[in-house]
Amino acid sequence: MIVLVLNCGSSSIKYQLLDMVNIEDPEVKAIGVVERIGQEEGVLTHKPLIDGEYQKFRFTGNIPNHEAGISLIMESLVNEVHGVIGAVSEIQAVGHRVAHGGESFSESVLINDSVKEEISKLSDLAPLHNPAHISGIEAMEKLLLGVPQVAVFDTSFHQSMPPESFLYAIPYEYYTKHKLRRYGFHGTSHKYVAEKACEHLGLEMDKINIVTCHLGNGASIAAIKKGKSYDTSMGFTPVEGLIMGTRVGNLDVGALLFLMEKEGLDLQGANDLINRKSGMLGISGVSSDMRDIEDEAWNKNNKRAALALDMYYSRVKRYIGAFAAEMGGIDVIIFTGGVGENGPETREAVCAGFGYMGVAFDTDANDGVRGELKEISTPKSRVKVMVVPTNEEKVIAVDTVNVLKSVAVN
Amino acid sequence: MIVLVLNCGSSSIKYQLLDMVNIEDPEVKAIGVVERIGQEEGVLTHKPLIDGEYQKFRFTGNIPNHEAGISLIMESLVNEVHGVIGAVSEIQAVGHRVAHGGESFSESVLINDSVKEEISKLSDLAPLHNPAHISGIEAMEKLLLGVPQVAVFDTSFHQSMPPESFLYAIPYEYYTKHKLRRYGFHGTSHKYVAEKACEHLGLEMDKINIVTCHLGNGASIAAIKKGKSYDTSMGFTPVEGLIMGTRVGNLDVGALLFLMEKEGLDLQGANDLINRKSGMLGISGVSSDMRDIEDEAWNKNNKRAALALDMYYSRVKRYIGAFAAEMGGIDVIIFTGGVGENGPETREAVCAGFGYMGVAFDTDANDGVRGELKEISTPKSRVKVMVVPTNEEKVIAVDTVNVLKSVAVN
Repeated sequence: MIVLVLNCGSSSIKYQLLDMVNIEDPEVKAIGVVERIGQEEGVLTHKPLIDGEYQKFRFTGNIPNHEAGISLIMESLVNEVHGVIGAVSEIQAVGHRVAHGGESFSESVLINDSVKEEISKLSDLAPLHNPAHISGIEAMEKLLLGVPQVAVFDTSFHQSMPPESFLYAIPYEYYTKHKLRRYGFHGTSHKYVAEKACEHLGLEMDKINIVTCHLGNGASIAAIKKGKSYDTSMGFTPVEGLIMGTRVGNLDVGALLFLMEKEGLDLQGANDLINRKSGMLGISGVSSDMRDIEDEAWNKNNKRAALALDMYYSRVKRYIGAFAAEMGGIDVIIFTGGVGENGPETREAVCAGFGYMGVAFDTDANDGVRGELKEISTPKSRVKVMVVPTNEEKVIAVDTVNVLKSVAVN
Repeated sequence: MIVLVLNCGSSSIKYQLLDMVNIEDPEVKAIGVVERIGQEEGVLTHKPLIDGEYQKFRFTGNIPNHEAGISLIMESLVNEVHGVIGAVSEIQAVGHRVAHGGESFSESVLINDSVKEEISKLSDLAPLHNPAHISGIEAMEKLLLGVPQVAVFDTSFHQSMPPESFLYAIPYEYYTKHKLRRYGFHGTSHKYVAEKACEHLGLEMDKINIVTCHLGNGASIAAIKKGKSYDTSMGFTPVEGLIMGTRVGNLDVGALLFLMEKEGLDLQGANDLINRKSGMLGISGVSSDMRDIEDEAWNKNNKRAALALDMYYSRVKRYIGAFAAEMGGIDVIIFTGGVGENGPETREAVCAGFGYMGVAFDTDANDGVRGELKEISTPKSRVKVMVVPTNEEKVIAVDTVNVLKSVAVN
């Protein structure tokens, strides 16, 4: 089965075309991204697998809307020179990454009119993303008449959180009126890496407690208690929790109001501050990218970059500790995402001093591990620590296939 | 030595008169509070120790400002009927609780003109409190000419926090420009109960890691690493951290901005929401007082009150876990404050499942402990858990005596 995975953002569309013949190890036939939709000059970067190697093609031009962007993707996929399939009809299913499923979706679903309506209704909670997803879904409906589409939600895995994890201590009526609560994100990634780790370790996921650290440009941690998400660091918005590239993470709400007053910031200005000017960029003043900040701190003696790293490590440590306390101890800690998979120094700094909770970190095993599944605790460690590469597109494709199978059965 | 302890708020003054002959066990000769300063009708509640028992007197009348309030206190202390000293000249020192010492004060100090100026300058960080403290200090200067006054800061104990604990991931220039950082509060209480516990347990405070839970109407937790505050839950403002009576504690800043937009709240409205309408009151909808909420949850089957308790416990648990992770494990956990000292159910719920970090909670020892110093972990517990009654006025009085002694020596 050929599955197209789409991640439609407000002005971009990421895509992957996967051949799912071997569902355990799908073949990515093409990967790419459309950017600057609706802006002066749009751009498509298309990387097809041709003769066993990924080529790179780049097209610029007017891309007025999502429909035009998706048409361009389709054209690229079937193009004589840089295409990877003979006709669009070879695409048998489309899997959409959907940012927000609110309280309506606790698992991936086959898209129909009522699902579309519900995703649309949730736009209040994800005003930049959900309308874009709907545009993408409707564009595909026109281009691939009758081909089933599946929605895979970033939030659904966390719908198992208990109220004491998902509620804020605001007046209760704001929860009922605005659905203002913690949702959490990166659900597909947290679930996927936890399952992979259990598979590798020969452990039953529904019998143990896991903490998954998805550390990328966006970053979140999840507490997975007996197979179900019990808590996570992102909340109502993806701003809460860890320090991210440009997102502030946890910040005293009183401090934000103080800053709005002192700096004369309106709501838009404040949103811009906490989303785009803070995080690693705000502290270091040089970059939002972990690699740049490590280089500045380690090779250029940049003190603020070093400070940003210390703050980053400390925040991750605190969450792992907090989740251990909530769940009554941890059996497995997993690192994933760009930084989690490729940052041995981050992993070592985060796990330092974790002996009290049963972690025996294996520095030698950790050193040099980049982007591969590996155990990085000692064989005797009561708590296992692992690196597990995540692959959200693959999870979406697999979920898409599984939803279609279960629909066919029912 | 007779010491007057004053805590001047924006419209109130709390006071205690202590005889410090036995510095380990001072005698409280009178305790009271002036309220509604500057409002239509002020009120003084005065409780003098007469013939071994505290009597209660109440006066109402016009109290236009702090100076008038303090005059009234002085008059009550020397009054023929309800007074406790013969003349104001018997008062040998005054200790002031000062809310905010910013980065300027890391210990208690003898008040002089430059100290007053510095406290005044810090009013930006505590606009309701620091100006009131200055009013109180200056009123005392007039009434007790030449009597030494000492400032004891709520923030100073936490000045030892490292930057990775005290900085937020906002643009660094807001720290340098506005001194926007985490300060923490309840410092005198955290320090006092930690010292008391070490004394009782025969442990050296500078060799162990302690978590102190000050759970009152305002509530905060501190991580004390080798005798020094390493982290604490309150931040730039006393809103951050735990769920309190009416304060929200941690809340996604993105969620606050969403709510401001949806509800049309301005900065004042938002401040009111997070300070006065949230917390236990906001969740339960019935009360900000733990005793009421417990009664509703346990005796009246009030589900939202029960939810508020679960959220409260969960938040405390998370902090203890986070601080354990930051410090590499804990040796002592201490409960204090109204709820901490008098809530066996809270202490048990918070410590549930802490076996993984070495806590063996002693349910029998814990049951019924209210307002007394007691060990509530089993004798074999690696981590000691204790109840230690706090007494901020006593700490202020003791600090006052000690500052005067050290000044006399130097």
